[in-house]
Amino acid sequence: MTDETPDDTDLAEPGGKVRLFIEDGLAAGDAVTLTEGQAHYLRHVMRAKSGEAVRLFNGRDGEWRAALALAGKRGAAAVPERQTRDQTVASDLWLCFAPVKKAPAEFIAQKATELGVSALRPIITRRTIVSRVNVERMRANAIEAAEQSDRLDVPDCHDPASLPWLLTAWPSHRALLFCDEAGAPPILDALKAAPMGPWGILIGPEGGFDAEERAAIRALPQCVPATLGSRILRADTAGLAALAIWQAALGS
Amino acid sequence: MTDETPDDTDLAEPGGKVRLFIEDGLAAGDAVTLTEGQAHYLRHVMRAKSGEAVRLFNGRDGEWRAALALAGKRGAAAVPERQTRDQTVASDLWLCFAPVKKAPAEFIAQKATELGVSALRPIITRRTIVSRVNVERMRANAIEAAEQSDRLDVPDCHDPASLPWLLTAWPSHRALLFCDEAGAPPILDALKAAPMGPWGILIGPEGGFDAEERAAIRALPQCVPATLGSRILRADTAGLAALAIWQAALGS
Repeated sequence: MTDETPDDTDLAEPGGKVRLFIEDGLAAGDAVTLTEGQAHYLRHVMRAKSGEAVRLFNGRDGEWRAALALAGKRGAAAVPERQTRDQTVASDLWLCFAPVKKAPAEFIAQKATELGVSALRPIITRRTIVSRVNVERMRANAIEAAEQSDRLDVPDCHDPASLPWLLTAWPSHRALLFCDEAGAPPILDALKAAPMGPWGILIGPEGGFDAEERAAIRALPQCVPATLGSRILRADTAGLAALAIWQAALGS
Repeated sequence: MTDETPDDTDLAEPGGKVRLFIEDGLAAGDAVTLTEGQAHYLRHVMRAKSGEAVRLFNGRDGEWRAALALAGKRGAAAVPERQTRDQTVASDLWLCFAPVKKAPAEFIAQKATELGVSALRPIITRRTIVSRVNVERMRANAIEAAEQSDRLDVPDCHDPASLPWLLTAWPSHRALLFCDEAGAPPILDALKAAPMGPWGILIGPEGGFDAEERAAIRALPQCVPATLGSRILRADTAGLAALAIWQAALGS
């Protein structure tokens, strides 16, 4: 125990520096089994010991302080003691992005999770070169980013969908921020004039959308076209910039 | 020449897809010598041939269409033919950032260049762990990002400076956007209430500034404290978010 000499690596203050996302429900006294990866991380990276405090969250039950219980050579569990934060509702904001070569989906997942997206939706467009998206790895990165950024939930990580499919199934009450390259109003003006409620941000691939795709997106009644300014941004930069600006204008 | 079958890799349309930053002055007919790296890139990556068009910029003379002249096995020059864009004045916006381990300064240089910074200033703070910054590599990344993002200049890349030195030498007419963690107004409100003119954005290291550092920053009359919201962002994410929001609010 390190209670007497708390420092930056102290697991026990103020409720454990280590935060772990778990799938199980959280209730006082109900031990949860940690995954092999979490157990390995606690033992060998954080050098944690039984009895030390960690923080747990599952996206539903808020955040809990829990006592670590290492068992055997590999096993680990944690026993929730008390709730340290109530569950809050995050922004309902999807990021729909065409995966690009130069910025792995994992990178986008990490940054977008920090910036508060509720769902990550890879989109396959005509000019999309990347054909495979490792959704599992994307989710692992989103979980890690959620653990480190004090989020109380993990964004939904979807399988890739084609653009027509995304547009066909777009919910009628969800605004679609379309970061178009040309002829659209500045993003802050577009957001100011737009309705409250759930949103999605749509970012194209390196070569942009083709003319027919752009027409189909703009034809959607929920579409809010906007420009990010006169600069030419890489696809991944554009996505993160749009998220940051959306949060500053409409987020919490 | 590929004039008859223009496609995405056509160097000749509409003034050369390849953009190169050079140090020399640009004037019609005055051949400029390209660096060894540029020559290698043109020959072996782009498979360019003599006579093909490239675009050149130097941060002073706008953008020029130039004809490539390969010589010998390694040499390359380009002869400016006509100016294709006038020089414009970019936003006067510094990014002062504490280098962090998880995001190399090169990455920050690339993204910040796309987002329109005029200067990159690495800052050493008390909690800065990274002690060396490769300024040359940072500049190489800024040049590459400028070439690819259609900028007409390259941000100044400064040697690392200590925080007290930065504050002591802070220009009296330059606003300092301090992305403080707590108790500051939302960034859009802070920017709206702030003066026009040159700006700098200051982002701390992973562990944040210490109390004395924060007090010194806030004591600067030019300091504009602001918060990026309730989310906890990594240092590099915070810097890019602040840049994107600044550009949306005050940029072009």
